[in-house]
Amino acid sequence: MKKSKSNPLEDISSWYTNIVNEAGLADYGPVKGTMVIKPYGFQIWDNIKNIFDKMIKSTGHVNAYFPLFIPKSFLAKEAKHVDGFAKECAVVTHTKLKTDSNKELTVDPDSKLEEEIIVRPTSETIIWSMYKKWIQSYRDLPVLINQWANVVRWEMRTRLFLRTSEFLWQEGHTAHATAKEAEKEALDILELYRKLLEDFLAIPVFTGIKSDSEKFAGADKTYCIEAMMKDKKALQAGTSHNLGQNFAKAFNVKFQNKNNKEELVWATSWGVSTRLIGAVILTHGDSKGLKLPPKIAPIQLVIIPIFRNKTQKEEIKLFLKPIILKLKNLGIRIKQDWTDSSPGYKFNEWELKGVPLRVEVGPRDVEKKSIILARRDTGEKISTSEINIESSIKSLLIDIQKNLFKQAKEFRDKNTHDVFDYGQLKKIIDEGGFVRCGWDGNVDTEMKIKEETKATIRCILKNLNTSSLNCIYSGKPAKYKVIFAKAY
Amino acid sequence: MKKSKSNPLEDISSWYTNIVNEAGLADYGPVKGTMVIKPYGFQIWDNIKNIFDKMIKSTGHVNAYFPLFIPKSFLAKEAKHVDGFAKECAVVTHTKLKTDSNKELTVDPDSKLEEEIIVRPTSETIIWSMYKKWIQSYRDLPVLINQWANVVRWEMRTRLFLRTSEFLWQEGHTAHATAKEAEKEALDILELYRKLLEDFLAIPVFTGIKSDSEKFAGADKTYCIEAMMKDKKALQAGTSHNLGQNFAKAFNVKFQNKNNKEELVWATSWGVSTRLIGAVILTHGDSKGLKLPPKIAPIQLVIIPIFRNKTQKEEIKLFLKPIILKLKNLGIRIKQDWTDSSPGYKFNEWELKGVPLRVEVGPRDVEKKSIILARRDTGEKISTSEINIESSIKSLLIDIQKNLFKQAKEFRDKNTHDVFDYGQLKKIIDEGGFVRCGWDGNVDTEMKIKEETKATIRCILKNLNTSSLNCIYSGKPAKYKVIFAKAY
Repeated sequence: MKKSKSNPLEDISSWYTNIVNEAGLADYGPVKGTMVIKPYGFQIWDNIKNIFDKMIKSTGHVNAYFPLFIPKSFLAKEAKHVDGFAKECAVVTHTKLKTDSNKELTVDPDSKLEEEIIVRPTSETIIWSMYKKWIQSYRDLPVLINQWANVVRWEMRTRLFLRTSEFLWQEGHTAHATAKEAEKEALDILELYRKLLEDFLAIPVFTGIKSDSEKFAGADKTYCIEAMMKDKKALQAGTSHNLGQNFAKAFNVKFQNKNNKEELVWATSWGVSTRLIGAVILTHGDSKGLKLPPKIAPIQLVIIPIFRNKTQKEEIKLFLKPIILKLKNLGIRIKQDWTDSSPGYKFNEWELKGVPLRVEVGPRDVEKKSIILARRDTGEKISTSEINIESSIKSLLIDIQKNLFKQAKEFRDKNTHDVFDYGQLKKIIDEGGFVRCGWDGNVDTEMKIKEETKATIRCILKNLNTSSLNCIYSGKPAKYKVIFAKAY
Repeated sequence: MKKSKSNPLEDISSWYTNIVNEAGLADYGPVKGTMVIKPYGFQIWDNIKNIFDKMIKSTGHVNAYFPLFIPKSFLAKEAKHVDGFAKECAVVTHTKLKTDSNKELTVDPDSKLEEEIIVRPTSETIIWSMYKKWIQSYRDLPVLINQWANVVRWEMRTRLFLRTSEFLWQEGHTAHATAKEAEKEALDILELYRKLLEDFLAIPVFTGIKSDSEKFAGADKTYCIEAMMKDKKALQAGTSHNLGQNFAKAFNVKFQNKNNKEELVWATSWGVSTRLIGAVILTHGDSKGLKLPPKIAPIQLVIIPIFRNKTQKEEIKLFLKPIILKLKNLGIRIKQDWTDSSPGYKFNEWELKGVPLRVEVGPRDVEKKSIILARRDTGEKISTSEINIESSIKSLLIDIQKNLFKQAKEFRDKNTHDVFDYGQLKKIIDEGGFVRCGWDGNVDTEMKIKEETKATIRCILKNLNTSSLNCIYSGKPAKYKVIFAKAY
């Protein structure tokens, strides 16, 4: 447990690895780059999933499930799409194993497939091949489908949650009758993503649009949410794409409009993944370990009884029983730790696991009919009398949620700099931080800055006045105001 | 919509295909044998999933996620296991595509993997390779993990929900310190499966144990639930395996027991899949289409307003508004159909989709302050006055749930025959039905009956007295009482 007791800013990479390991969030699988999500980590994902699932259902979306396997030829149908994914595909070529003459298990050459199959890296192609069957008329539109699924993108440099060959995500795939509707959908989802991150994960984000060189392979426009991690690097936390008619063209998906004319269908797609768990760790964690926002914490409150003998233990149990019942009725997720370890050991362990609130109860507390509440976010300890326990805990959980967002936002804002000089940009990128500045919209400018500083345009900020702004690199009038940063 | 208007008993295969298609449950994917679960079908699965997820969580199980990809060598570690799955594996051999000199997209030969990867057909091997890392002492036991995931078993003869190359399921994988505990776990889960099927899916099941020739590849014992479909064939609806120490041996997973001695860990695994949706269709459906038990129906109540003009429409809307609000507050899943189609068309459509209860409201009903309720299970129509609507609907939904189970159980019992003569067995198997009879426990007997009748032992019934019973085939004293039937 000791390894995580380091300042995340000193060596964030090993700090992160230690947290993931010691808090029991995830582990590497036997095939290179694959991830095992352990129960505690999976509960965080389940909480995030349930929150977002409600959001999309309340805005008219429905879930479905499309196959894992995509015919190789499908990928080739959208030119940019195949460029984006061909180099990181898991390819299925055979369907049988057999025991050879040396009694070794080998691939049966007779089972070779005529057409190789791709394990989905994303599902646009397979879904649009189905939409071709399902969409005929404007009456069939819009189609607002989402799926929760696993996808595979072969990765060499992997890091748990942030970059693995297989990950879990949701992918929305919608079909619309007009360009305007598709654009509205892409923006509505972007707003849901912002809400998910800020109101539930307590992670402040910049929303904006990707430059052409950073957008999704096959999209007209990619909207994104970008967050700042503890090391002042950016993490792309979610993307929402306006796909225009690109996939409708590739799969020839047309509909009869109200005037009886045939038109190509308009599309969006959008996704967030288990990467969000990495974002939570890297936004809120500290030298003691994980810090979880109450709204997504598998355990919101851990109860640590402190006793020296059986009598004391029984007294505490009796005292706690009605309190726990009330808290459970309030829907608070509680864990009681009655194991044999010392209180100090338990404090460390549950702090490492990021539980927002800890209750300490000893014999004296029972006498005084009170408990001690310890906040994970501030370390503050509060003594609360029995009658106020429920309301104190309720309001503390709300306060911790708010405070984690506030702390993260202050950190992000403090390290986001309005910059007007290229030297200054280089200095900040080198030292760590986001640079907000003008850009002339030229891809060459973007690439030169990337080469020289390793910073990329994280997003083009929307609706910002650039009339008096010049490009940070070329000095020409700026077309956009953008965020430059190094990224995960 | 007309195609499904046939008696399921006349041609059950095409009747089934039509229902799946016309009720919008599922579709075939482009890769042979893969399935697209459409939104309506997926909602049924989601409801089943939520019910069973609650059951296993309330019995101490937790969810996690293990990788899709298994190294080929892992499969070979358990001899029987590999025999069971080697012939139906999707094998990943490469990780890149490239465009060749003819501008065709081909597999990049340079990306060939050193060791081929298997797409999981089931996860025992990968999970036990992880348990090897996680389990050291009796304190680490039991491990009660479940995952909701997709698995792949290459199938040539496919049928949606019942047999597809990829399907969705839950797979529980538990580890225990004693043989007794593992046995108890396997039986506890069997009881949860029985409850899920009978109390929620309204499908009566026989529970029992598989004969050695029918058990899971790698198990010591396979417990199962077996249901009778409309065509009197059996469907294996769920299995719970006592794996003994087979996987612990294969992956060398030992723990220090309380006496400081090293022992191999004991294991179970268990699963139910999207096949359950097939079971629901084939148990309850009729010539009008699907019949869904209220507890798993995506829509429990469909409201069909009947009007000739705008005034009537507005009157009905006004009348319904407070009623709908109350029903929603009761947690009833409601759909209102205000589309332009005729009432008759709508009746057919929602009957086809199996909605348990239909509300009809016309101008006269508004005048009388009443509605008509039509039951999907019996066709019965009930007029209910406004004040009784909530209680009527609530009790009708309960009654429909019960009645569907009752109808299915009567059908199953009527077609399950206690048989003492082999000629009689052949006749019943030929005409359709379950045969309950004595078996001498000899695998040759089992195989001969299978060859001659195509019937298999669906399950060995538990705790039944066989003292005066003889084997249906050999005439020798029976060792077991079993169910013989043809199966899906």
